[in-house]
Amino acid sequence: MSDCLFCKILDREIPADIVFENEYVLAFNDINPQAPVHILIIPKEHIATSNDIDAGNMDLVGEMLVAAKEIAAKKGIGINGYRTVINCNEDGGQAVYHIHMHLLGGRQMSWPPG
Amino acid sequence: MSDCLFCKILDREIPADIVFENEYVLAFNDINPQAPVHILIIPKEHIATSNDIDAGNMDLVGEMLVAAKEIAAKKGIGINGYRTVINCNEDGGQAVYHIHMHLLGGRQMSWPPG
Repeated sequence: MSDCLFCKILDREIPADIVFENEYVLAFNDINPQAPVHILIIPKEHIATSNDIDAGNMDLVGEMLVAAKEIAAKKGIGINGYRTVINCNEDGGQAVYHIHMHLLGGRQMSWPPG
Repeated sequence: MSDCLFCKILDREIPADIVFENEYVLAFNDINPQAPVHILIIPKEHIATSNDIDAGNMDLVGEMLVAAKEIAAKKGIGINGYRTVINCNEDGGQAVYHIHMHLLGGRQMSWPPG
């Protein structure tokens, strides 16, 4: 997607503070962090929203959560805990239309989640 | 897990307001809803936390999100949007140690997510 911000980060056309990468996902620090650890995990395939997840790409959702778990462990927040969030469309608060998982931790997360 | 609340719901030992079920997941209304739609989606396999997701069970994460998408569509909030949240351990705000995805919608979700 030529006009997708996150595809441009994947293509290294736009810089990001990358913290993790494997065959399936890329992860980088959120530019407007809401917690001591706030990282975005994106699939390398362009998928706009949660509504576009189906049998053909659902494996990438698991890849995102496994990446979140591994990053949390590396950041030292795995045992204390963390929250993962995916926003879909306007009511969900989705800001970029390339699906992404927010990983937040390093503090007590409160309830409700927004 | 004999002492797991959600396994007891899966076994119909404890009632819940079930809204969706398939081979992999069960979904029911949260007893303390934080939005007009607030549903918990749990895998039928007992997995304690996000830290226990690995190559052997990560397909269930995708199943949870696909279920969330399908439930959101049925509830009429798919297009307006929704938020999905998984809490891990104490800092994440995890209340039941059987992994579950919160699906919230029917209102504008705010930021930060807790």
